[in-house]
Amino acid sequence: MGKVILDMAMSLDGFISGLNNADAGLYDWYFAPAPPSARVKEELIKTLGAIIMGRRTYGTGDEANGFEDDPYTAARFILTHHPPEKVGKGAESFTFVTDGIESALRQAKAAVGERDVAIGGGANTAQQYLKAGLVDEIQIHLVPRLVGDGIRLFDHPGSEPITLETTRVIESVGVTHLKYRIVK
Amino acid sequence: MGKVILDMAMSLDGFISGLNNADAGLYDWYFAPAPPSARVKEELIKTLGAIIMGRRTYGTGDEANGFEDDPYTAARFILTHHPPEKVGKGAESFTFVTDGIESALRQAKAAVGERDVAIGGGANTAQQYLKAGLVDEIQIHLVPRLVGDGIRLFDHPGSEPITLETTRVIESVGVTHLKYRIVK
Repeated sequence: MGKVILDMAMSLDGFISGLNNADAGLYDWYFAPAPPSARVKEELIKTLGAIIMGRRTYGTGDEANGFEDDPYTAARFILTHHPPEKVGKGAESFTFVTDGIESALRQAKAAVGERDVAIGGGANTAQQYLKAGLVDEIQIHLVPRLVGDGIRLFDHPGSEPITLETTRVIESVGVTHLKYRIVK
Repeated sequence: MGKVILDMAMSLDGFISGLNNADAGLYDWYFAPAPPSARVKEELIKTLGAIIMGRRTYGTGDEANGFEDDPYTAARFILTHHPPEKVGKGAESFTFVTDGIESALRQAKAAVGERDVAIGGGANTAQQYLKAGLVDEIQIHLVPRLVGDGIRLFDHPGSEPITLETTRVIESVGVTHLKYRIVK
């Protein structure tokens, strides 16, 4: 049975993007990976059967782009209240889910077989799945940068504490890949 | 010449203490260290000649306690506008500095010789030293826990981005010790 993994890149000061969605260089390790990161990336591509993401992570326009050269064969499930009328290149097979996070996860699990399902952001989507207790593991690609301002991954005052167990630490160039199991 | 190191424990979601200063278990690795953490702790005790901290990190009462069994021989410099009238056990030799962060650092450097100076918190003190460009390295003892709410280490919207280089990653039990050099 596959796992549900929250998988995101984050700066040391907790941001997943800069102010006004500015590129904070948090995916440099992904696009030009040093050998340890290349192995992490390859593992992601192999093991992920589906990726669930919020509407803004998918893209801000109707025809969100950037998926043309996408190496993932994973099915994509996009959480939204308003599915776009047309989609960009590479996104033709994406599923837009309008009836909530449980439904998206159910559909994703049905699609993946033994492979894993990733929660790929943004912060609100991540928090919803964490709060609902639906996440098994967290993988944070921790980037050595203080971004200073922007969108935080963990910014939900009043959330219940969650205990984690570190299961893997991979040191690479420009990133440390940290994997945690959620202790339930 | 010694270095200036921001050295603090932080949860994966960026907190250095829980809500209302609740103990968030972020120093368990310190008080009951697994072997890799024991070595990190020993290194700290050996290499730190002085520790600068803010008034609230020193303690909230006049007679802040908790320093009786303190293994550090490091000189302590406490930033404050209002030095306490009397101090707790173990704190008799502490210096209360009322004329700002540069003064505290100057006094600390004069005291340490070749040893390092740690900035030991809290968040405001850390941010002031970072902003002034006075920090050489950052060591974060990253604790696998989502605390949910409390005091964040990096919570200063509008700060300029700071680029770091990861210089050391030590995996331990209940903590990952991450060391960074500030790229100037």
